[in-house]
Amino acid sequence: MNALLRMGKRQIFLMSSSAVHGYEYLQHAESDLRAYFGKNNVKKVLFIPYALSNHDAYTEKVGTVLKRWGFDCEGIHRQSDPVQAVNDAQAIYIGGGNTFLLLKSLYDNALVEPIRDRVLNGSVPYVGSSAGTNVATRSIQTTNDMPIIFPPTFDALALVPFNINPHYLDPEVGGKHKGETREERIVQFHELNEAPVLGLREGSTLLVDGDRATLIGVNKARLFRRGQEPQEFESGADFSFLMK
Amino acid sequence: MNALLRMGKRQIFLMSSSAVHGYEYLQHAESDLRAYFGKNNVKKVLFIPYALSNHDAYTEKVGTVLKRWGFDCEGIHRQSDPVQAVNDAQAIYIGGGNTFLLLKSLYDNALVEPIRDRVLNGSVPYVGSSAGTNVATRSIQTTNDMPIIFPPTFDALALVPFNINPHYLDPEVGGKHKGETREERIVQFHELNEAPVLGLREGSTLLVDGDRATLIGVNKARLFRRGQEPQEFESGADFSFLMK
Repeated sequence: MNALLRMGKRQIFLMSSSAVHGYEYLQHAESDLRAYFGKNNVKKVLFIPYALSNHDAYTEKVGTVLKRWGFDCEGIHRQSDPVQAVNDAQAIYIGGGNTFLLLKSLYDNALVEPIRDRVLNGSVPYVGSSAGTNVATRSIQTTNDMPIIFPPTFDALALVPFNINPHYLDPEVGGKHKGETREERIVQFHELNEAPVLGLREGSTLLVDGDRATLIGVNKARLFRRGQEPQEFESGADFSFLMK
Repeated sequence: MNALLRMGKRQIFLMSSSAVHGYEYLQHAESDLRAYFGKNNVKKVLFIPYALSNHDAYTEKVGTVLKRWGFDCEGIHRQSDPVQAVNDAQAIYIGGGNTFLLLKSLYDNALVEPIRDRVLNGSVPYVGSSAGTNVATRSIQTTNDMPIIFPPTFDALALVPFNINPHYLDPEVGGKHKGETREERIVQFHELNEAPVLGLREGSTLLVDGDRATLIGVNKARLFRRGQEPQEFESGADFSFLMK
């Protein structure tokens, strides 16, 4: 099958995290992710393990789960031509880890435009988790990660026109720590930036089908818009208004 | 007094945070900071509020405390020539907030070299808190803050040749959140970087006098070195070995 023949609406599956309390690795998303791959006729997934330093171990970990579900998986780091691998992929899955390392590696391997082009023209479905969700948005400016390496820019794949904060965390009740809460950090982001920030708690996923976006999964999400009170949304909420 | 006449050993006071549970703002450091200013004949402090967006309010907040202790305080944002203000300062105090915004503002105002030169030649004592402590080290790569704005580099003042993680936080016992712990983030830093990372818990301060560094304050610190087990240090510990 020539993947490029399949053109249509963008298909994007953005998880807050791969690990969720009370679930095995990726288990919280199993039924949704299997349905997503099934709907898009995916038999084989191209995994991009750049967010962690041990690419083989990381690909093995994710691939083991995907194979149990009936999908083949290959790591892009084992391909002689990563751009060609992206152009041939039936599905692209970018895993979590360090967002700065991930974004820099995507630029170093000249993958930002090829991935963006194929996802936006609807010829390949995208899956992201944690850092892989950060890089799918307009920028990595709402990552929780340490800036362990300097990327050429914070601009990312821009598969969606807003920001996401994965692993969104509510303030600890009665907490003694005085570091900024996640919400305070997002307020600081909005002092300098306009884009909405969707706080995806662990277990929640944003599913995009063309211009339609829906919150799915086992947890709620919190939306931050500049100059407005944050709003809570239940699983099933329609976020299509963020896609404009 | 011409501040430049006073040359000698670098004097650096790096707080984890200005707020500590159980203390008023800056109170945890009051006796140490008063002694530090006293020893260095400081009557007036140049405050750099760039890490927060409201410079006047921030300078007022810190200045109120300093004035109660008997020191004058002026904000650099009110000076017509920030570089000249640095060159004339009796003491430089950089407050916390967002580390990326702070570092970018220091570069935008061409203050990195003037501050570095004066602190390293011992002609002005430096005080930092949180983000102001991050920028005092070799780089901001171990900040906890969100990258809300893109700085020209992560390289910072390099007043000390290692990294600090302010607001260092131990893993929550029995925690359900699956985001990386602070220690895991520092381990990721060490996969790509060599520099030691001093994890300063809230309430702890690193006091530098020439090539001598001492942990002071009301809390312990945790030192991370690449390829080694982390080590705990009590207040009073000698960290001079990190200055080499």
